[in-house]
Amino acid sequence: MTAYAVGIDYGTESARAVLVDCADGSELATSVHVYANGVIDERLPAPDDDVRLEPDWALQDPRDYVAALQSAVPAVLREAGVDPDDVVGVGIDFTSCTMLPALADGTPLCMVEDLRREPHAWVKLWKHHAAQHEADLINAVGAERGEPWVERYGGRYSSEWFFAKALQILDEAPHVYARAGRLLEAADWIVWQLTGIETRNACTAGYKAMWTPDDGFPDSSFFAALDPRFADVVDTRMSRTLLPLGSRAGRICSRAAARTGLTPGTPVAVGNVDAHASVPAVGVTDARRLVAIMGTSTCDILLGDTLASVAGMCGVVEDGVVPGLYGYEAGQSGVGDIFAWLVDTVGLPHEVLTAEASALRPGESGLLALDWWNGNRSVLVDGDLRGLLVGMTLATRPAEIYRALIEATAFGMRVIVEAFERAGVAVEEIVAAGGLPDRNPLLMQIYADVCGLPIVVAGSRQAPALGAAMFGAVAGGAHRSIVEASAAMAPPARDRYTPEAQSASAYDTLFCEYKRLHDLFGRGGDDVMRRLKSLQHEVKRGAVGFRATRVPG
Amino acid sequence: MTAYAVGIDYGTESARAVLVDCADGSELATSVHVYANGVIDERLPAPDDDVRLEPDWALQDPRDYVAALQSAVPAVLREAGVDPDDVVGVGIDFTSCTMLPALADGTPLCMVEDLRREPHAWVKLWKHHAAQHEADLINAVGAERGEPWVERYGGRYSSEWFFAKALQILDEAPHVYARAGRLLEAADWIVWQLTGIETRNACTAGYKAMWTPDDGFPDSSFFAALDPRFADVVDTRMSRTLLPLGSRAGRICSRAAARTGLTPGTPVAVGNVDAHASVPAVGVTDARRLVAIMGTSTCDILLGDTLASVAGMCGVVEDGVVPGLYGYEAGQSGVGDIFAWLVDTVGLPHEVLTAEASALRPGESGLLALDWWNGNRSVLVDGDLRGLLVGMTLATRPAEIYRALIEATAFGMRVIVEAFERAGVAVEEIVAAGGLPDRNPLLMQIYADVCGLPIVVAGSRQAPALGAAMFGAVAGGAHRSIVEASAAMAPPARDRYTPEAQSASAYDTLFCEYKRLHDLFGRGGDDVMRRLKSLQHEVKRGAVGFRATRVPG
Repeated sequence: MTAYAVGIDYGTESARAVLVDCADGSELATSVHVYANGVIDERLPAPDDDVRLEPDWALQDPRDYVAALQSAVPAVLREAGVDPDDVVGVGIDFTSCTMLPALADGTPLCMVEDLRREPHAWVKLWKHHAAQHEADLINAVGAERGEPWVERYGGRYSSEWFFAKALQILDEAPHVYARAGRLLEAADWIVWQLTGIETRNACTAGYKAMWTPDDGFPDSSFFAALDPRFADVVDTRMSRTLLPLGSRAGRICSRAAARTGLTPGTPVAVGNVDAHASVPAVGVTDARRLVAIMGTSTCDILLGDTLASVAGMCGVVEDGVVPGLYGYEAGQSGVGDIFAWLVDTVGLPHEVLTAEASALRPGESGLLALDWWNGNRSVLVDGDLRGLLVGMTLATRPAEIYRALIEATAFGMRVIVEAFERAGVAVEEIVAAGGLPDRNPLLMQIYADVCGLPIVVAGSRQAPALGAAMFGAVAGGAHRSIVEASAAMAPPARDRYTPEAQSASAYDTLFCEYKRLHDLFGRGGDDVMRRLKSLQHEVKRGAVGFRATRVPG
Repeated sequence: MTAYAVGIDYGTESARAVLVDCADGSELATSVHVYANGVIDERLPAPDDDVRLEPDWALQDPRDYVAALQSAVPAVLREAGVDPDDVVGVGIDFTSCTMLPALADGTPLCMVEDLRREPHAWVKLWKHHAAQHEADLINAVGAERGEPWVERYGGRYSSEWFFAKALQILDEAPHVYARAGRLLEAADWIVWQLTGIETRNACTAGYKAMWTPDDGFPDSSFFAALDPRFADVVDTRMSRTLLPLGSRAGRICSRAAARTGLTPGTPVAVGNVDAHASVPAVGVTDARRLVAIMGTSTCDILLGDTLASVAGMCGVVEDGVVPGLYGYEAGQSGVGDIFAWLVDTVGLPHEVLTAEASALRPGESGLLALDWWNGNRSVLVDGDLRGLLVGMTLATRPAEIYRALIEATAFGMRVIVEAFERAGVAVEEIVAAGGLPDRNPLLMQIYADVCGLPIVVAGSRQAPALGAAMFGAVAGGAHRSIVEASAAMAPPARDRYTPEAQSASAYDTLFCEYKRLHDLFGRGGDDVMRRLKSLQHEVKRGAVGFRATRVPG
């Protein structure tokens, strides 16, 4: 019998559906749906585009998620020519923590007429960085109370995570918070749209919302210490029922069937995170191989046999990625985004910059950067950090800056690898997935040279969607476990890069410089970045009250 | 009787001749000659363009200087329609320290057939920065011996100055040094070409070559301590006869008359430095007004009634600019050059960047730069320093960087102003001259706001050439002194900018951040710039021996 699975990967700018064969993972069809409203970071969409957003905000429109279902799923069914009855399961993965407030019936608050002009009623995208104040409070209170989650989150809870964003709604828009019957991950919201019933996944709860299978969520006294009105957030707006990965969340409901062309009753897996779904898709279900999903940002997943405390990691959850292992997560909040920024800034295409940058030797540009254009996730967990570039002369060329930015993100990766190793969680190889490794062999070689580790490029060009389909296949019974599904369905690696000794040695020298500046500007030795950001925000809010500089003559 | 003077200003890329009326300074004609070989910083000119230069080198071709005489002087005589017999005097000014080795008859060594492929046989332009090693040695030996020039040079002798460059020739090309019958400033070389006799000026000797009217040059034991072969450098290759500014160096010789169309016997003033010649041209012959000549770099001249020790200034010479006053010199080695670098890097014209940058308020970009793309002259006197930019986010735009670079150079100016004031040399106003103030009111307002001082834009658009003509008029007897010439011939100021209180206050905040990073990276707290430069040079020399990064597949 032929069995197929559909995986849907919800990314930052678009969603991608794949239809795969459950026997061998071969991809029969792919369809990409670009979100009409993309990342909303300057003003709300029309007709409310007079509502401007403050710096560091990043929202999305949930209607884009539904539109992706309506467009991409029928497209893959059509392209593959597959009978929808032969689709045994559906899985989704999502960026995280991407979260939204909704009514009790799941209607997003931004779709409620009298709330649509409220920025806090919209989906907060993972890279919404305006909840640093709340994250600081959470960390201070957590440390003071000795909360057990502090260690599991590498010592710092990020402004990107669930309770920072939820608390920001309460802080800044209590009237919006009051209307929120539910606060939930977009991953769970889209599964709700597919099945018609609310089902939450244990993965995002573990990684973003302080939950563990043994102890559940933190005590309400912790939430009360943040804000008395926040004490009951779990019981009034969330759920204590959380299903493990690979579970069946429900079945395709009639409304979803009409939207997608899938057969009503088709099993749907619980929601998952893009990076986590990618791990089995790149063939990793064991320890010692760090999976790096590299795109606009990088998410790192490493499996380990034991529970360790890793400074600055994003989180560790037992069974959080693959059953029986601890799933460690870390990440870099700006990678491809930074390269794209340079492309925009200098007005030269990636190809031109890459060609010229490839001819340079390590150290030849005399440049060094701190890759914090979008803050720092691991290991500093500080959204207030900013980019730095040093070493420019009048002879410095755009391609030299481009290479310095690539090198900086590679140094950032090495900081993460060293943090794992120092904590006793071994890393022997990097498995690269996502959009970047495919397009940029120079980048892969620099990462291998900087980290001093072999890098394998995963076989699938769409690992998150394939992984989502694998979990769909498990939910639908085509495989007994995700380990089995991975063994059967993950394609072989495409490329392998090994460290080149002389470059690696030069990068050792440069990494010493990076590490010292990293610690100086990242650990409070010099707080210039934070103060520049703070002044910038005051000026933009008009709190400082400058007039535009007068230009005579 | 009608009396005219000709001034010739030798700049970095071109030379400019003006013909002015000695009565009121009115400019009758101007002509610009662009050097055919410009700044030579990658390879020697054809046919020797297979000879590559090391990083930080900057040479010029003396034939370009003569070509300028032949082209620009006849052009102004023709354009003005003036009888050459009515030209009472000629003055020149030059970039400094721009110096060259020559035979005893003045023939530049690069024009000697068997030496033309030797980079050390060419003119070393002011911004030749490859003699840092020699400058370091000079400073170490000077400090150890307690040489009196150390204090007069603000505590550090620059790699740009005369003996650093001369010693580099001896160090790296002793066979070239051995052939040099003369080592001299280009200012004195071109006067030699005009008059047919070697005459040296006291100004460059005082500012660049440690000379004072009372004590002359340092003792030969000092030069011997640098290198025994260097002990006799003054007596074998220089001159102890140095004429004060405004003196007559000689008269136009027949060969120069044939080249220029000037009448043989026309008085020629001793050579001068561009910035110094500008001071009387902008109407400054008294204390408390700092003259900033702003172009690719900025040179600051301040007159003072007393001799003070100013940390990091370039030099102080009694009568060095105007008789009866101490002439203090300081400077910034990269200003307009840095803005031009950004224009090249981002591919947008100055006008577009200026328009967008003008709409920003201080602090709004969140950016801060250290303006050391070309090293730092005052107050750190360190050619090894490099540029730094901090505060970038994914939303950072080119115009924000452009404004941050303008602000950084303004902060650099404020550091200089504060160094003078701390030493008791008052600054009450800045008089801006050169190419930049004219084209960029935004820049002038930012300088006024950052420095908290009024800024006056000098009336003459070609102050160095006008000043050279004024000294020519004095040498020719049309005025009794440069103070009289300035009073009669300097045009009134064109614009005036005053600090805007709110911007000035915001810049006070940003300046604190600048100053801290300035001291951290500039005074040895963190030596990353020096180490990056050193690694870069090793890689470029092949000493590290990398192969190009291998790029598979």
